[in-house]
Order: sequence, then C-alpha cells, then structure tokens
Amino acid sequence: MTLLYSLDLLGTAAFAASGALAGIRREMDIFGVLVLGLVTATGGGTLRDLLLGDTPPFILQNETYLYLSITVSLTVFIFHRHLEFLKHPLTYFDAVGLGTFVVIGTGKALDFRVGFIGSVMMGVMTATAGGMIRDVLSNRVPLVLRKEVYASACLAGGALLWLLHQTSLPRAWSLLASASTVIILRLLAIRFNWSLPRARYIKH
Amino acid sequence: MTLLYSLDLLGTAAFAASGALAGIRREMDIFGVLVLGLVTATGGGTLRDLLLGDTPPFILQNETYLYLSITVSLTVFIFHRHLEFLKHPLTYFDAVGLGTFVVIGTGKALDFRVGFIGSVMMGVMTATAGGMIRDVLSNRVPLVLRKEVYASACLAGGALLWLLHQTSLPRAWSLLASASTVIILRLLAIRFNWSLPRARYIKH
Amino acid sequence: MTLLYSLDLLGTAAFAASGALAGIRREMDIFGVLVLGLVTATGGGTLRDLLLGDTPPFILQNETYLYLSITVSLTVFIFHRHLEFLKHPLTYFDAVGLGTFVVIGTGKALDFRVGFIGSVMMGVMTATAGGMIRDVLSNRVPLVLRKEVYASACLAGGALLWLLHQTSLPRAWSLLASASTVIILRLLAIRFNWSLPRARYIKH
Repeated sequence: MTLLYSLDLLGTAAFAASGALAGIRREMDIFGVLVLGLVTATGGGTLRDLLLGDTPPFILQNETYLYLSITVSLTVFIFHRHLEFLKHPLTYFDAVGLGTFVVIGTGKALDFRVGFIGSVMMGVMTATAGGMIRDVLSNRVPLVLRKEVYASACLAGGALLWLLHQTSLPRAWSLLASASTVIILRLLAIRFNWSLPRARYIKH
Repeated sequence: MTLLYSLDLLGTAAFAASGALAGIRREMDIFGVLVLGLVTATGGGTLRDLLLGDTPPFILQNETYLYLSITVSLTVFIFHRHLEFLKHPLTYFDAVGLGTFVVIGTGKALDFRVGFIGSVMMGVMTATAGGMIRDVLSNRVPLVLRKEVYASACLAGGALLWLLHQTSLPRAWSLLASASTVIILRLLAIRFNWSLPRARYIKH
Repeated sequence: MTLLYSLDLLGTAAFAASGALAGIRREMDIFGVLVLGLVTATGGGTLRDLLLGDTPPFILQNETYLYLSITVSLTVFIFHRHLEFLKHPLTYFDAVGLGTFVVIGTGKALDFRVGFIGSVMMGVMTATAGGMIRDVLSNRVPLVLRKEVYASACLAGGALLWLLHQTSLPRAWSLLASASTVIILRLLAIRFNWSLPRARYIKH
C-alpha cells in the first residue's frame, strides 16, 4: 500500500529528527546524534521483528529506512540552529509516525497469528520502544513512562485495528481508520494537554 | 508439569507486583507502571527465548503471562496504598519466582543442547534480566549488580540442575530440587542479610 | 582463519577487562563485575547475531568466549589493585579488539547478503554495542556517543571491508587490511587526542 509506505517514511523521518535533537540537547558528538536518530526511528520496529522472529529485521531488508534516518540525523546535526521553523510541523509529522507505526506493528503481529493482547503490545512497542531506547541512552527515565498520553493513543489504535480485523472491512480501510484514530487522539492530547493518572507515592 | 506451571504463574505475579511498585515509587503514570510490571515479570524469559531462537517468545505463545502481569500491575497501581499487608508474603512469592524462573531457563537451554556455562547463564538471565530492565528504565544501576546474593542463589540452582541433568534422576525431581535450592538460599540471604564481596575501588 | 580467531580472543579478553574495571569503579559486587565484563566483551556480537537471525548466538555455540570473559572478569575483580602495569598494553589490546570485532561483524553481515549500510552498521555495532550496554548498566550516557573517534574508526574499517569485498582480493587480505585500518586509526586518535565535532546546543 503506497499511502501507508509514504506515511511510514514520513514518520521515520520525524522520529529520526526527534532522536537527533535529543542527542544535540545532550551535547553528544556527531556519532551520538546519528545513533540516537537511528534508534528512535527504527528501534521499535526492529525489536518487533526480533520478537516475531522475522529476521533480519525490516531495516536490513529495505535499507531505505537506514539511509533516510541517517540523512535526517546528519541534516539536523548540521542545521539544527536554522530548523526552528520546523518545530511546529514536526509535532504533526511525529503524530503521523505514531499512528502509522502502531498499525504497521499490530497489523504485522496479526499476520503472524499473535493473539489480541500480544498484537496490541506489538503495535504500541513499534511506536514507543525507539523513543524509550533514545531516553535510556540519554540516561533518562523514558518520557513515555512518565507523562504522556502518547501510549494510550497507541493502545486505542491497536485495539481498534484488532477489532476491525475481525470484521469483513478491507484491510486498507482498517489500517487507515486505526492510524487516524491514533493521530487525532495524539493531537487532541497535545492541544488540550491531557495526561494519564499518575501514582502518588506515599512512603509508609 | 502442573506444579511448575503454577509456581511460574505465582512468580510472574510477584515479579509484576515488584515492577509495578518500582514504577509507583518513581511516580510514573499508569502506562509506566504497566510497562515496568510487564518487563520485570516477562523480560528475562523473553530475552532467553530470543537468544535460544525460540520465536515468537513464550509471552506471545501463551498470553496468560501478559494478562496476569497486566492485571497485577493495574491492581497494584490502583490499590497500592492498601496493599501494605502483602509486603511480607511478597518476599516469599518473589523467592518462589526466582527459583522457578532459574530452573525453567536452565532447563529450556539444556533442551536446546546449550553447554554448561551457557545453560546456567540462561537460567540466571531468565530470573534477573527483567529486574535489570526495570532498573534501567527507572534510570538506576540494576540492584542485582550492586548488593544482592540474588544472583548467586540463581547460579547455584542453575549449576545444580545441570549436574542433576547428567544423572538418571527424573526431570521433575531435578527441577524441584534445584528450584528449592534457589528459594531456600534466597530466603536465608534475606534472613541473615548476606551479601557478596564488593570491589573497593581505590583511585591510583 | 587462525590469526583472526586469536585476535578475536585477545579483543574479547581486553573488552572483558575494560567492562570489569567499569564495574569495580562503580563499586559493584562480584556478580556485577562479572556481568559488566561479559556484556562488554560479548554484547555487541550477540546483538549482531540476534539481528541477523543466527541463533543461538556465537557465545552459545562456542562457549570459549564465555569462559574467557568470566576468567578475565574474575581475575580483574580479585587482582585489580595489582594490575596497574597492564593499563598501557590494555589500550593496544582494546584497539585490536575494536578492529577485529568490526571486520567479523561486517564480514558476517556480508555473508548474510546484507547491503552496504547495513553491513557497516553490523560491524560498528559488533564493536561498540557491548560498551554501550556496559555504560547503560552503569547508569551513564554511553561514552562512545559523547566523545570518541572510536566509532569513526569502526565506520571507516567497515566501509573499507565492504569495498574490498567487491574486488577479487582474497578474503583474508581484506579482513586484515580493514582490521589494521581500524586499529591504526584508533591508536592515532588516542595519540593525537582526536575527537568528533560535537553539537553546541543553544536553547532558543
């Protein structure tokens, strides 16, 4: 499906940019910025392929993802002081990546005959694990574990795709509906500053 | 073996609870608490299956482990202020999990014809890697690397299982003897506050 | 190839020693020092084998690497105060390990018909991922991401091997030439204190 592939590449570029920016913020050298861009953009899907036993993972089967992530990361490294105007659109591209990654992950798990909860987990992981590895390599608690609706939007989209998969709806429609749900939820969350309940820890 | 499976589920629940509690202590949101419960309970076994090439890993083959970990994590998230009475029994359940995970890991490696040191390593990893991932995601040096006999108990149990595997003892007996060894060593270590020698670092 | 295997073992020992020393510096206990030695020496190659789908990974197929890493780590743990005289040679052994790991990684990826950028990445990963895991477990931002030419030397060596692989040069010569390139670049970098450009982050 050409549309899904285009959205996938757009999302990959957005995730690579966010990873590279995190590396720049941590004052890493050019190699560090490259690694952070790469893992943010491709880490989730790679982990998914390892778990599904589909090796070598997608990045080694179609090197477009690697070339794209590297190009974006290097561009951000060199021009980051002049990319301020991209900050706003990046939020939208990032949401598009989130939605696309979820449906690709959940969809692939369904193809591998994984059950409901496992498929949803594969979708959420495809979309969030790269960012978690980025944060771990930056020596931080992953942002997604602390204060983001990021993950709930993914959960909702993965569950919806599983549901639609049980119906006779054409695959392309299911994928688009689920991806759109994630994207819209994500943008609403940013717009209205939603966040998940957090545990208040009281030392006994 | 039904007994081993029951102990395995008990251990999974105990590990999920300890992971969820770590998430609460770090003031994570509900998704973070869920992820920490999940990786603590299932991360070690998943890594073992990846290394043995047995994909998809056990969590995707029998989703009971995922449902159990998620249920326990959510319960801990909601009721953690009222679960103080579980603190003491949790220590025992945790030890049971440790012993069970070691023998399942080492036993599976032996089935895959892995050698002595590799099999012991797979057992120790099954029991400890989930907790290490939990600590890495919490931005801490893994506790097990710093001050626990946790790991030695696992090493002893894994080595014992390998040894018994060379004899004509029925499998079930070997598994039970080895798991019990780990559990007893672990509880003795807690009771008498044992700890491993630590390197005293002197800057030259 | 016996020479390559010897260099591989020498590099494994050097990486295990550097990992064990990191554990000692962080005042870990004997198990922590062992784990850090093991992951530093074998983590990169293990990750490479997982990605290439060659499971169980090399460490479980030839346990020499495990026994060697464990022996070195324990020796460093016990005698670290008397090993000062090894500090200087360790730099050279470490460079040898770097070069050997890169060509083994890139070479194996080429055997698995991975493309150019993927093969170079597998080489760099084989040489650097173990150290990254060591630093993550020590709760630090991986050194290689911040201020080392470490990685560029690996990139150059991996790319050279890919290039030579396209010619009719005998495999053994290609491997030796590429490994030597990495080793010499690495030693020059240490000698002349080279480092990669770093992003200067200016908060807007």
